[in-house]
Amino acid sequence: MSKLKIYILLVVFVATSSCAISQSHPKLILTKKGVNEIRAQLDKLPMLKSSFQQAVDLVDAEIKNGIEVPVPKDMAGGYTHNRHKKNYLVMQKAGVLFQITQNEEYAIYVRDMLMEYAKMYPTLGLHPANRSYAPGKIFWQNLNDANWLVYTSQAYDCVYDWLSANERRKLEKDLFRPFADHLSVDSPQFYNRVHNHSTWGNAAVGMIGFVMNDKELIDRAFYGLKSDNIKADQKDNDGGLIKMQNNGKAGFFAQLDFLFSPDGYYTEGPYYQRYAMYPFVMFAEAIENCKPEVKIFEYRDGLLVKAIQTLLNLTDVNGLFFPINDALKGMSYLSRELVSSVDIIYYFGGEDAGLLSVAEQQGQVMLDDSGLAVAKAIQSGKQKAYQKKSANYKDGADGEQGALGILRAGEGVNELCLVMKNTSQGMGHGHFDKLSFSLYDDKGEVLPDYGAARYVNIEQKFGGGYLHENKTWAKQTVAHNTVVVNGISHFGGKTDVGNQFHSEPYFFDADQENFQIISAKENNAYQGVKMHRTLALISDSRFEKPVLLDVFCVNSDSTQQYELPYHFKGQLLSTNYEYKRPEISKKMGESNGYQHLRLEAEGQAKNDNAKISWLANNRFYSITSYVSPDDNLQLVRIGANDPNFNLRQEPAFIIKKKPQKNAAFVSVVEVHGKYDRVTEFADNAFSSISKVELLFNTDKYTAVSFQDKKDNKWTLILANMDSDKDSKHQLEISGMNYKWTGAFHFVRAK
Amino acid sequence: MSKLKIYILLVVFVATSSCAISQSHPKLILTKKGVNEIRAQLDKLPMLKSSFQQAVDLVDAEIKNGIEVPVPKDMAGGYTHNRHKKNYLVMQKAGVLFQITQNEEYAIYVRDMLMEYAKMYPTLGLHPANRSYAPGKIFWQNLNDANWLVYTSQAYDCVYDWLSANERRKLEKDLFRPFADHLSVDSPQFYNRVHNHSTWGNAAVGMIGFVMNDKELIDRAFYGLKSDNIKADQKDNDGGLIKMQNNGKAGFFAQLDFLFSPDGYYTEGPYYQRYAMYPFVMFAEAIENCKPEVKIFEYRDGLLVKAIQTLLNLTDVNGLFFPINDALKGMSYLSRELVSSVDIIYYFGGEDAGLLSVAEQQGQVMLDDSGLAVAKAIQSGKQKAYQKKSANYKDGADGEQGALGILRAGEGVNELCLVMKNTSQGMGHGHFDKLSFSLYDDKGEVLPDYGAARYVNIEQKFGGGYLHENKTWAKQTVAHNTVVVNGISHFGGKTDVGNQFHSEPYFFDADQENFQIISAKENNAYQGVKMHRTLALISDSRFEKPVLLDVFCVNSDSTQQYELPYHFKGQLLSTNYEYKRPEISKKMGESNGYQHLRLEAEGQAKNDNAKISWLANNRFYSITSYVSPDDNLQLVRIGANDPNFNLRQEPAFIIKKKPQKNAAFVSVVEVHGKYDRVTEFADNAFSSISKVELLFNTDKYTAVSFQDKKDNKWTLILANMDSDKDSKHQLEISGMNYKWTGAFHFVRAK
Repeated sequence: MSKLKIYILLVVFVATSSCAISQSHPKLILTKKGVNEIRAQLDKLPMLKSSFQQAVDLVDAEIKNGIEVPVPKDMAGGYTHNRHKKNYLVMQKAGVLFQITQNEEYAIYVRDMLMEYAKMYPTLGLHPANRSYAPGKIFWQNLNDANWLVYTSQAYDCVYDWLSANERRKLEKDLFRPFADHLSVDSPQFYNRVHNHSTWGNAAVGMIGFVMNDKELIDRAFYGLKSDNIKADQKDNDGGLIKMQNNGKAGFFAQLDFLFSPDGYYTEGPYYQRYAMYPFVMFAEAIENCKPEVKIFEYRDGLLVKAIQTLLNLTDVNGLFFPINDALKGMSYLSRELVSSVDIIYYFGGEDAGLLSVAEQQGQVMLDDSGLAVAKAIQSGKQKAYQKKSANYKDGADGEQGALGILRAGEGVNELCLVMKNTSQGMGHGHFDKLSFSLYDDKGEVLPDYGAARYVNIEQKFGGGYLHENKTWAKQTVAHNTVVVNGISHFGGKTDVGNQFHSEPYFFDADQENFQIISAKENNAYQGVKMHRTLALISDSRFEKPVLLDVFCVNSDSTQQYELPYHFKGQLLSTNYEYKRPEISKKMGESNGYQHLRLEAEGQAKNDNAKISWLANNRFYSITSYVSPDDNLQLVRIGANDPNFNLRQEPAFIIKKKPQKNAAFVSVVEVHGKYDRVTEFADNAFSSISKVELLFNTDKYTAVSFQDKKDNKWTLILANMDSDKDSKHQLEISGMNYKWTGAFHFVRAK
Repeated sequence: MSKLKIYILLVVFVATSSCAISQSHPKLILTKKGVNEIRAQLDKLPMLKSSFQQAVDLVDAEIKNGIEVPVPKDMAGGYTHNRHKKNYLVMQKAGVLFQITQNEEYAIYVRDMLMEYAKMYPTLGLHPANRSYAPGKIFWQNLNDANWLVYTSQAYDCVYDWLSANERRKLEKDLFRPFADHLSVDSPQFYNRVHNHSTWGNAAVGMIGFVMNDKELIDRAFYGLKSDNIKADQKDNDGGLIKMQNNGKAGFFAQLDFLFSPDGYYTEGPYYQRYAMYPFVMFAEAIENCKPEVKIFEYRDGLLVKAIQTLLNLTDVNGLFFPINDALKGMSYLSRELVSSVDIIYYFGGEDAGLLSVAEQQGQVMLDDSGLAVAKAIQSGKQKAYQKKSANYKDGADGEQGALGILRAGEGVNELCLVMKNTSQGMGHGHFDKLSFSLYDDKGEVLPDYGAARYVNIEQKFGGGYLHENKTWAKQTVAHNTVVVNGISHFGGKTDVGNQFHSEPYFFDADQENFQIISAKENNAYQGVKMHRTLALISDSRFEKPVLLDVFCVNSDSTQQYELPYHFKGQLLSTNYEYKRPEISKKMGESNGYQHLRLEAEGQAKNDNAKISWLANNRFYSITSYVSPDDNLQLVRIGANDPNFNLRQEPAFIIKKKPQKNAAFVSVVEVHGKYDRVTEFADNAFSSISKVELLFNTDKYTAVSFQDKKDNKWTLILANMDSDKDSKHQLEISGMNYKWTGAFHFVRAK
């Protein structure tokens, strides 16, 4: 923590000793210099031109449509919500277009709309929906009001010099200053947290502060409110505690200090990180433009640059963010937040040529100095492929709250990527999924994470908000690919308890492309149960693609019921064991997510291996597991107890052990072959694995092996109590003597 | 029928008076002239070059792999099946490559493999699987053996001149002649039908006949066997009758006369038509090359050209064939059969420039004269967009066995297409789905046809064959979007009965782009029940996209239970009525497909309209139906009673009327809006329809209307007993007097 203190002291010094802020506009995101160059280069840079044209099309259509500033009424997804959201997006673009084209029509549109808001704002009480822990005035929650101000401050900056002093006075008095105050001094429970909500609030207040040259607001943005009276047990709508461990700090620098780990990982996960990035990078750009002496992009060892690079690496082959915690699937690095982030980090953060290929996929650039730089670099052919990598991203402000591990192996059609969640809880949006993993191939999800139960902005689904099933299903442990003990979710499904702990990364080694391994432990999710999972991606010419080896050991002094679900997608093709399908299908439990599952089939393995294969996306998948003939092998499906059809009815395979003290789940997951619906050829449709074995299992060592159909055998031995790279080990298994150095020993088939 | 007889006589004359067949090889598909030009142009024509290169890659890899000619053993999907299938595909390409490159390695590969077959063939009895009504020797069914010979005769043609006379003698004596005999004289139940199986048989025998210059085989190919002893009740594996109404004719010309309607529609549907086309077009090309005096492409008013054009029009926006009857989804005009068809029809059938854009999508061309012509035309930029159209394709050899109706409206993202099935049964692969329809938009299926229950060539699923559930679910009426009476499928689910009838097209009018309508009746599916359905695609600027109006009247003298299912895909968003979801889910019946359905929810409408909305492919969909508050509104899902997980668990909405004599189902189906997972914006997420009404319903007239939320009202009146275009009608409804001419009267909102 001593390093953090230095950062904070440094910034206090820098900010208080800052020189005067420039009086000339635009200065916030666009700069006078940038505008001039954009005008000069517009026709020469196709990406800039097409982004410009998109803005023109959007804004011109809205100008034609006329200004609508309705009295706030609806929740997310409803008319007034969508209209106000559109208004700020369009105003921001109209402001930029005014600067680039000097066409006054755009300035008039911004002014007239702002005047409508200035007329209405003083008449507004809190939003009538009354559903948020921190209600806005324009929207149901202050978060959206802060969005409005982050965008609208940019629009105001663009027309500032064009407006009359009287107009500016009216806008600032009736709209911007009370708006900023409502977000901050009137809503400390929203503003003075360390949280993405507060980041939006800080950025909103700071950005309008820069435009208005209001030092009090800028200070408030940087360092928060001096007092807030937030109670220790006060919670937000997601059940998250409002008062956090932040040494009493608040404001933008506190967000930078505490919201990210030193690796730039954001504890809520990439979906929220993506959302959170926009105020970070936009406000940072504004700070860099208005107060360059802060050197904001160098702050905390280049944290903002790291955060974007980490975020880009937390995506699958299609650029979709790994949907850990409360995440909506389909969100990707094509989002507007990432367009800004990539452009800004390219321009202010060292011109990494890999970012240009992401920008090319995004197909648009910011209409500012950073977008200009990206468009120019692409036009001169500087782009390189963006290289995603294996990485173990530390979680927690101090980097000591667990980690999110990514292993990537194979290339092209053979690409496989696994994400292992050994992090802290992730606050209110966190899921109870310690040591869980998800698997991706070159087509997307293989063993998925369910993500959140929510349809953002689809009004029919609970106004677009989090659904009841988000809590009762999506957050629960059984909704994830990890062990459930006694049918109860980790930490009893209690966020407050989960917040106190994090998993312990045990080791991570991705140095060899053809053998990558990650291992972690979790001893707090269940009292008296120790969990230790190791996942390895193994590339070998004898397999078509890398195979995944999963070794999950659970130990307790007393008898427990252990279950390990593997969620998959697609159509079951075959099992190597017989099962019964109940004629009548009913929910599998009353709580902890089981109330949303239906048992579709159950059976027992004939010997000590169970295999299922399925077909999805015209590809074959198999899991082969070491089991006991006593284990109950269940095929289940999501969808019970779902009164509003909110859940996706997806299948899972659950290995349910008979009650025991210690158990080891050992599985090999294969992605193999392909099916061509046009030629009707099926290639490599069968699993190559003939056997998976648990060879040895004590407190100190666990050894497993798997064989292919030609009896080639691969063996992995884990040292369970010593992760030191230099420790020497020796172990005899079935007459074979193994000697090695380090926490694991992999013996490849000859 | 008199016209048909003329065709037949004409051909008998042409064929028997034919001149001598050319003695020089290749002559069958490749010609000497073609080979020379391909060699000369190869480097100048990218599509030809890439098809050539694909062939080189495939064949070279196989040559490296070595020749494998295993003793036949496996069913479809198994090793010996796949290997022999690959062998004929590779031999055909190797032959072509020998001609183009003159590299003897290719000829040697073909010769050596043929010699292996010649060694093995005399030792083979019938295929050991013993599962087919007509077993092959190489494969489990003669159909696949015929495939083998159609391809291999091309390979033999290419190496014919290069082989020694001794080698040719051995191959013909030990392999080709007995092979052709097994397909024909030894298997009359396979060869002497009017059926796609026999077409393959005829083509195989004829093509090897041409190569061997064997007039007896050519005659046998053209006109079938003189006697066959097929019994009147003999059936094939699909339950299809072997003896058909074909005036005692057999052979290739009988197939041309009886398998297609005058519009080129093939009664089994496009999936089988696609499969059937290959022997038709390949043998036709061979005939054109070897006996041009037959003028095969002009036969029956250019039937083969029409058949391909019809087939191309029977596809959705992605080129996927409408999956009516036993059809596997995903099959498209990218299939190799369609590559040949498109090339051959372009070259021999009038050089329609629209075909070139299909060939471009296919990305490959035949390595023959026709592919050369296509590659040249594309290289010189002659291609035009392929224009799909609305059409009512007559079914039956005489064109009097019902029709398949296609309506297409809208363009680009607003494209909608409906397929209405008013055909004959479609033989053994036919489904019991009279008057059913399926709906497609620019993304694909909206209200789908289930297609077949089968995973072709996926051995885990019953050897890749038709699954039990194909009969118990996929063929049943409730699996389709049409009315089920008393829970029993059309014709009691009996193919023999269904084969005796066809639906009656009532009218079809696609002359106006913004109002297209199709109407048909079915009076035989249920004794004593008359069914009459009318479907209209209505384009109107007040709706985002065309809307579908569905009016389905059923009449009986006695009380019946009427149900209309709408199968959909995706996630239910909302209903305008309350429903209960049973806690326990069980099968909905014992037979007729109901044993595979589970009830997920049931409820009653509050008034006389029921609406459901759902989300799929990031788009919104709604059905609004005129109902009675007594109607049981069911949300169901496929998947009960499915021991092997063979079925896809897809949802359907069923309107179940309380028992009554006469009923009218009136619905409006909307495709609307979009959802963007990256911007998280939902546009036009709500149905625009405020009301659907049945205004009037007697034997003579049915009138319906629907309104949007602005109370604009559209009215459709149908004359039920007079489809004459010139008949004058007058009707008073609620004080309004309507006068019109023709079978329908559409009153658009002002």
